[in-house]
Amino acid sequence: MNSGRFIALEGGEGTGKSTQARLLVNALAAAEIDAVATREPGGTPGAEAIRELLLHPPGEGWTMEAESLLFAAARADHVQRRILPAIADGTWVVCDRFVDSSRAYQGGAGKLGDAAVQAMHEIGSHGLRPDLVILIDADDRLVRERLALRDGTRTDAIGGREADYHAAVRQTFLANARNDENVAIIDGDSTPEEVHSRIMQVVTRKFGLSS
Amino acid sequence: MNSGRFIALEGGEGTGKSTQARLLVNALAAAEIDAVATREPGGTPGAEAIRELLLHPPGEGWTMEAESLLFAAARADHVQRRILPAIADGTWVVCDRFVDSSRAYQGGAGKLGDAAVQAMHEIGSHGLRPDLVILIDADDRLVRERLALRDGTRTDAIGGREADYHAAVRQTFLANARNDENVAIIDGDSTPEEVHSRIMQVVTRKFGLSS
Repeated sequence: MNSGRFIALEGGEGTGKSTQARLLVNALAAAEIDAVATREPGGTPGAEAIRELLLHPPGEGWTMEAESLLFAAARADHVQRRILPAIADGTWVVCDRFVDSSRAYQGGAGKLGDAAVQAMHEIGSHGLRPDLVILIDADDRLVRERLALRDGTRTDAIGGREADYHAAVRQTFLANARNDENVAIIDGDSTPEEVHSRIMQVVTRKFGLSS
Repeated sequence: MNSGRFIALEGGEGTGKSTQARLLVNALAAAEIDAVATREPGGTPGAEAIRELLLHPPGEGWTMEAESLLFAAARADHVQRRILPAIADGTWVVCDRFVDSSRAYQGGAGKLGDAAVQAMHEIGSHGLRPDLVILIDADDRLVRERLALRDGTRTDAIGGREADYHAAVRQTFLANARNDENVAIIDGDSTPEEVHSRIMQVVTRKFGLSS
């Protein structure tokens, strides 16, 4: 049996990652590929419990140091309990966010540095990299408009940070992507169907699917 | 105003750390020193929430990697939100467990390695070391007898591990202590009053208290 592939969807708030993860899994299923969608932080009972602490912190809110360690802990559980077993079982894993989000949110925008985030990922998840990262990049103004359409209950401790922080997240995503041939930058400034079509071109080319 | 001192009490399960922390804080108070007792994992609302996840894991239990990252996250919160502000305020902090517990439980007995634990501590807490570590070392057989007297509700995911694991914890504590002049090894094989008396000798000598 062939092992599965690991694809991460990355990008800031409101760039459409969750929608695209769903569309991608559906398209893989239509091509008779066994695929599952999962997300970070989360994806296992342990990591979902950590997600709750991260997005709705008890007390005064996490320092950037504690926040980054919690993300690495959640990822370690997700990788060892779910992602690696699924891949070994021949399943394709489509993950809404992975380590590049930590590099952008805590390493870059949070000023913790890329080396610290990579060190934690090495300790927690033996440095696992996806076979393909799809970075959905969208114009800041467009993203703000989309987020305004979401109901208020979706605001959390990280998504609710100020515009400068989210602008730095975007710039870090782009800067890191330009140094990594396994990251495809996809323009997210159009309809979900158009973005999905662009993603399928990349996935087909990368893995040689019959389109 | 002088800054406070930071004293950590270390050792395996059932070695009497909590009792000794209380006796030490009382003795410092009697010497008119402003002192607080705290514990790890815990000591802040955030870190106490992580403690609950560590001792009573959702799902299948944490991998050693995730466990070590959670300890480092809890410590980061505790250090930045409570320990450092107290010390800066002139208060002495007596902490039941600190980073040497992570080095013993996850680094040594958990086979994660000392360098990984130290790296996480550097990221999370800028490598903060106590001014004095008191390692209470007690004979394994004696500890088992003491633990048998505790009621069953005190068993948790870490304390409940097998005897070989706890023997490795003890050996790692001792090995690390022998390389560190800020660690005093105290014989815990006697009454709480006798152990307290030994601890006060060390504290008095180290900090020049009038005894």
